[in-house]
Amino acid sequence: MTDLPRLRLKAQEERRLREGHAWVYSNEVDIAATPLKAFAPGDQAVVEDSRGKPLGVAIVNPNTLICARLVGRDVAHPLSASLFTHRLQIALSLRETWYPEPYYRLVYGDSDGLPGLVVDRFGDHLVVQISTAGMEREREALVAALVKVLKPAGILLKNDGKMRQVEGLDSYVEVAYGEVPQVLTLRENGVTFESRVREGQKTGWFYDHRESRARLKGLVAGKRVLDVFSYIGGWGVQAAAFGAAEVHCVDASERALDQVVRNAALNGLQGKVQTLQGDAFDALQALKQDGERFDVVIMDPPAFITRRKDHKAGLQAYRRANELAMRLLGRDGLLVSGSCSMHLAREELVDVIRAGSRHIDRQAQIVHHGHQGADHPVHPAIPETEYLKAVFARILPV
Amino acid sequence: MTDLPRLRLKAQEERRLREGHAWVYSNEVDIAATPLKAFAPGDQAVVEDSRGKPLGVAIVNPNTLICARLVGRDVAHPLSASLFTHRLQIALSLRETWYPEPYYRLVYGDSDGLPGLVVDRFGDHLVVQISTAGMEREREALVAALVKVLKPAGILLKNDGKMRQVEGLDSYVEVAYGEVPQVLTLRENGVTFESRVREGQKTGWFYDHRESRARLKGLVAGKRVLDVFSYIGGWGVQAAAFGAAEVHCVDASERALDQVVRNAALNGLQGKVQTLQGDAFDALQALKQDGERFDVVIMDPPAFITRRKDHKAGLQAYRRANELAMRLLGRDGLLVSGSCSMHLAREELVDVIRAGSRHIDRQAQIVHHGHQGADHPVHPAIPETEYLKAVFARILPV
Repeated sequence: MTDLPRLRLKAQEERRLREGHAWVYSNEVDIAATPLKAFAPGDQAVVEDSRGKPLGVAIVNPNTLICARLVGRDVAHPLSASLFTHRLQIALSLRETWYPEPYYRLVYGDSDGLPGLVVDRFGDHLVVQISTAGMEREREALVAALVKVLKPAGILLKNDGKMRQVEGLDSYVEVAYGEVPQVLTLRENGVTFESRVREGQKTGWFYDHRESRARLKGLVAGKRVLDVFSYIGGWGVQAAAFGAAEVHCVDASERALDQVVRNAALNGLQGKVQTLQGDAFDALQALKQDGERFDVVIMDPPAFITRRKDHKAGLQAYRRANELAMRLLGRDGLLVSGSCSMHLAREELVDVIRAGSRHIDRQAQIVHHGHQGADHPVHPAIPETEYLKAVFARILPV
Repeated sequence: MTDLPRLRLKAQEERRLREGHAWVYSNEVDIAATPLKAFAPGDQAVVEDSRGKPLGVAIVNPNTLICARLVGRDVAHPLSASLFTHRLQIALSLRETWYPEPYYRLVYGDSDGLPGLVVDRFGDHLVVQISTAGMEREREALVAALVKVLKPAGILLKNDGKMRQVEGLDSYVEVAYGEVPQVLTLRENGVTFESRVREGQKTGWFYDHRESRARLKGLVAGKRVLDVFSYIGGWGVQAAAFGAAEVHCVDASERALDQVVRNAALNGLQGKVQTLQGDAFDALQALKQDGERFDVVIMDPPAFITRRKDHKAGLQAYRRANELAMRLLGRDGLLVSGSCSMHLAREELVDVIRAGSRHIDRQAQIVHHGHQGADHPVHPAIPETEYLKAVFARILPV
């Protein structure tokens, strides 16, 4: 039995945890019995029900709405190098089953039993993002376990995410082990990419759309493809690799587009991929005015809805973006519409496509639904772990 | 302009059609202006809004709750050999883009603009199911168009579905063109199957799970697999073809299991696939009592919820089936849980897995979501066109 402090829940408040969830909200704690004030951010505790029965071990932050996150249900095993090693082995086993090469999200937070931790693997290099005080406190044990299980050449802590501020953590990027070059190489669906991970978005690459990108195979051969919000070419360069006649990548970032060009060249596709720098909405309007038409338009914007209260405005942005995309499609065109907004339901995205297609007097058929890959497993009790959508829609004349 | 009779909607009732839907309910018709009684089942009509503005052409059945189904929005083109040809060409183009071989659902009802029509293609042979009086009335034009577009060797009308009675249609199975042998051959994901289509379920094969079955590749190699409600081996024989060490198929039908054995042999897998005849629930209990364990359990039952009012009892059946399946899994097992109940939401199936895994003190990770394939396109305004779910869940110790 552990000598960790106790965090007692009020009566009936253990139900969510028993049903599989991993979070405790601060209003569920019996603060008369176990004052939250007694905890420092990052402390560990045994969470117990109102009768004192232990439910599991959690990392605690008394200053956040979610004040405790379970790291396990066995109170004999708090978060330590040993638990990290165990969890990493289970996580690795899943990815090795699903993916032939070592390029994937190795750890996806609560879904892998490690709340506030993301690890993306680029072969011998790992990029880590920590977003909870509890994980930050145990970072040495984490790095030791990563070294033990994966024997990497280098580990980068890319600890500059927005959620860190909420947890009272500062923002930094540093090498925690070995060496990490400026540019990391990865392969996805047989296509090679480089990412400048230190300055890139999030961990530098979005592995989550891998399966949907693979779906382009067979659908883009000989086609004219537009990739909107292309970032460094995840969709566009793969479309070119799968035989597209020409691909046009639109992004606001000149640096991202430079990397698109480089990634196309890495795969011998320099002649196939062109870039167009600018605001996506403006660029789509301009293409429309020029009478441009595409066989396939990929519309995978950044999250237009980041907080629930932005839902209405965000939904409007999805409507506008998708309708603009559909207007650029030829008679029998394919729209690939992505959303990484957790607050946008899949049915809402389908309805955005329905409404937009009707508005321009066309008819949509939904032909494929893409989800985040197996390296972003969904925790069945935590809906927040599911966020990614890719809807493939055929847009026909009525 | 057509000389079809008019079917006028009450004020405001045109909205659903304008938004993309294809159905008119009988209470939406202005029966003072255009009495439904004046129509015979299978008549065509121009549907118009309350001001007389035409909305499209529909097939009518005055005796059913859904009294009219749009076949198109252009009133110059009623249902005829020419419209069938047009719709079939559009439908065929989608399937030829997505599938390398001529084995697929060629027409999927409203989603392909042909309400009440299903056509499954087995190479040179077509199996047709008609479930509306309007389609039945036009069956000669339909057969002519199928012959023109697909040049088949034979067309079987398998008109024995349950919905026909509601439409006032009799039940029959007959060859409408050419010759149709007792046994048809098909290939799915590179694996060969035979189906005795005349006596089989529905059209004799369920193409809808194709993409999810393809997903077994890489996940079942060397594994011990249980396929529950196997029918003629769609999942199980493919698992064996993808390298499973042994596959056990459970079904209540001796004839279906005979066909499993035959299908395994067709692919040189006779040593890999065993069959177990009996009630699925009883069989799972017996396997549990014998201490049997599997690496992968596929649980793809027939629809436990066929009508909305059966939801509660059906949900309970899904719970029981899935929990039984999970009890048979080894330490790090994969559950593939299917549902073809339109009335069971995907989130409900995920919750069935969550609850079942917690009940046996295990933890689930949802690693993949499978949907009906592109040959079963979803109509974005008609939620009823989406019915199929396959959830892949990793079931771990807590």
